[in-house]
Amino acid sequence: MTEPLPFGATIGILGGGQLGRMLSVAAARLGYRTHIYEPGANPPAADVARQTTTAPYDDAAALRAFADSVDVITYEFENVPTEALDLLEARRPIRPGRRALAVSQDRIAEKTFLQGIGLAVAPFAPVTDRASLEAALDRIGAPSILKTARLGYDGKGQARIRTAADADAALAAMAGAPAVLEGFIPFTHEVSVIAARGLGGSVAAYDPGENVHEAGILRTTTVPARLTEAQRTDAVLIAARILNALDYVGVLGVELFVTPGALIVNEIAPRVHNSGHWTQNGCAVDQFEQHIRAITGWPLGDGRRYADVTMENLIGDDMDRVPALAREPDVALHLYGKAEARPGRKMGHANRIRR
Amino acid sequence: MTEPLPFGATIGILGGGQLGRMLSVAAARLGYRTHIYEPGANPPAADVARQTTTAPYDDAAALRAFADSVDVITYEFENVPTEALDLLEARRPIRPGRRALAVSQDRIAEKTFLQGIGLAVAPFAPVTDRASLEAALDRIGAPSILKTARLGYDGKGQARIRTAADADAALAAMAGAPAVLEGFIPFTHEVSVIAARGLGGSVAAYDPGENVHEAGILRTTTVPARLTEAQRTDAVLIAARILNALDYVGVLGVELFVTPGALIVNEIAPRVHNSGHWTQNGCAVDQFEQHIRAITGWPLGDGRRYADVTMENLIGDDMDRVPALAREPDVALHLYGKAEARPGRKMGHANRIRR
Repeated sequence: MTEPLPFGATIGILGGGQLGRMLSVAAARLGYRTHIYEPGANPPAADVARQTTTAPYDDAAALRAFADSVDVITYEFENVPTEALDLLEARRPIRPGRRALAVSQDRIAEKTFLQGIGLAVAPFAPVTDRASLEAALDRIGAPSILKTARLGYDGKGQARIRTAADADAALAAMAGAPAVLEGFIPFTHEVSVIAARGLGGSVAAYDPGENVHEAGILRTTTVPARLTEAQRTDAVLIAARILNALDYVGVLGVELFVTPGALIVNEIAPRVHNSGHWTQNGCAVDQFEQHIRAITGWPLGDGRRYADVTMENLIGDDMDRVPALAREPDVALHLYGKAEARPGRKMGHANRIRR
Repeated sequence: MTEPLPFGATIGILGGGQLGRMLSVAAARLGYRTHIYEPGANPPAADVARQTTTAPYDDAAALRAFADSVDVITYEFENVPTEALDLLEARRPIRPGRRALAVSQDRIAEKTFLQGIGLAVAPFAPVTDRASLEAALDRIGAPSILKTARLGYDGKGQARIRTAADADAALAAMAGAPAVLEGFIPFTHEVSVIAARGLGGSVAAYDPGENVHEAGILRTTTVPARLTEAQRTDAVLIAARILNALDYVGVLGVELFVTPGALIVNEIAPRVHNSGHWTQNGCAVDQFEQHIRAITGWPLGDGRRYADVTMENLIGDDMDRVPALAREPDVALHLYGKAEARPGRKMGHANRIRR
């Protein structure tokens, strides 16, 4: 047994968005302090953190001072530059570890890893130019989807190929970046599993949630998801296999396509995940606290659910609906404190408890 | 209808203890920032606040700067010095208002007020010296309890009088401070109602909780409390009468003795209350968010409960039990980040969800 990080210790969080913000609150609930590192000014997480550093990821002095001020480092997004991670890791443990980051920063590495541990993924092929795209289309066919290999999120850096005639436009949308062509999976719906692995290797998972996207952005997650008992078990076993293969520490999000034949892994996120926000109002230990428990060496919460919940993201001018939502019984609001409600920007979410 | 305080506005909180800490988290959840004013160093609330001022309550410059930096002021404890309140109130609204503070800062004023609005309280008499104590004992008799009129909490400044022979020791325990003799109420158990009144005058209450004290400190609160339907209604009506009489804005805690004949008001607290912590894991809108909603002009949550909960305070070396509690399913931990676990010090609480 590892001793947990002592009370009063400081957790460094790379990224000051809403995930960092909710991680910070969870850390406080367990008696820890947080220090946020974020290049952008006025990050949402700064409202609920003990300390905030505003500096870019190439500021070695700021990174060093940050590392020296904390006891363990975690992150709210997987695209932290490698050089920054190298510098930080020389001083403090980073959890989840580098392997999980390397795998999830690159779609090709991710799919190759998932296939390697025996999980089903969509057919895929790397694309760097017109010739490799044509070869990929020959093998995978259309409809399919071309995605940048790195730095994609919320539907950005993606182009659908309905027929071969769409190939040129899709390639242009990649703007020269390495890409991957993915075959289209005829899925009935998407679910995700939020699972965690502790420092000692124990694994816990929440009940899978069913996700609905709009314009590439998660709109709602509902628990329980429409799954058979066998699928439910399968989903959790898939997540556990990934966690163990990566010797993972922390919370991981796994998106799965539900097809008549099998569950296909769409992608993984080495962090707390938007589709796990429902746990804040459905579980004694939510995904944010679960992540903090994992990286600080606490026992994991068992993931059991005491209420059915539908989580709805509040995006852009959905904020205009907040006064009405505030009057609805059984709705828990979680706003992120962002000043400007731009289109497509996640401003908060509402967890609706279903009786 | 009043427009609510705009998103991004700052709420000033007097006091940086655990109540200020949990208020700060709730404020963030609604998109507000907080500024904590606290004389003591390293207050628990500073871990989750945007800004903290460390200064005494007689530092006029610090108070002025604090007031100028916030949009509305609230407090986590009722014993803020009057001069500080005068200075602050000249610059920003203080909610709940001064009347509630004046009444609850002084046990004699409080009982006189409660009697004046037709509520039942224990028989009481002011005591300033040996002669007035004897007169009070003649009228009220023993067993009774002598309490300092001001600044008492968690059983401090109280002395039981079992027989007249205890009178001298009890008087000495008051150390010359104005006191009040209270008759002993033969109650079966104590409950409390956490209720709120909004800026527009609407009132909402949570289901009463049943309190168990040890050594003068709250040990557990359990919802639902053992009450008949009539008593439950009565308890809520008592709280509403107090809120309306004080033209109150915010959350109020009302402690009630349950006797075979009636509910007797023990005391009121013009703030979020330890016996309302269970709402964090039982309600979509907890008492902290309810208070923030009230003072910022939001609609109130309706107070409905979606889980039964027992809240247990973690006091002093109860912290040694945290590792075991962390392994229990359905237990939500809320630690306060206090460095030193002194005897009698509230270090955190555990909400146990009962299925």
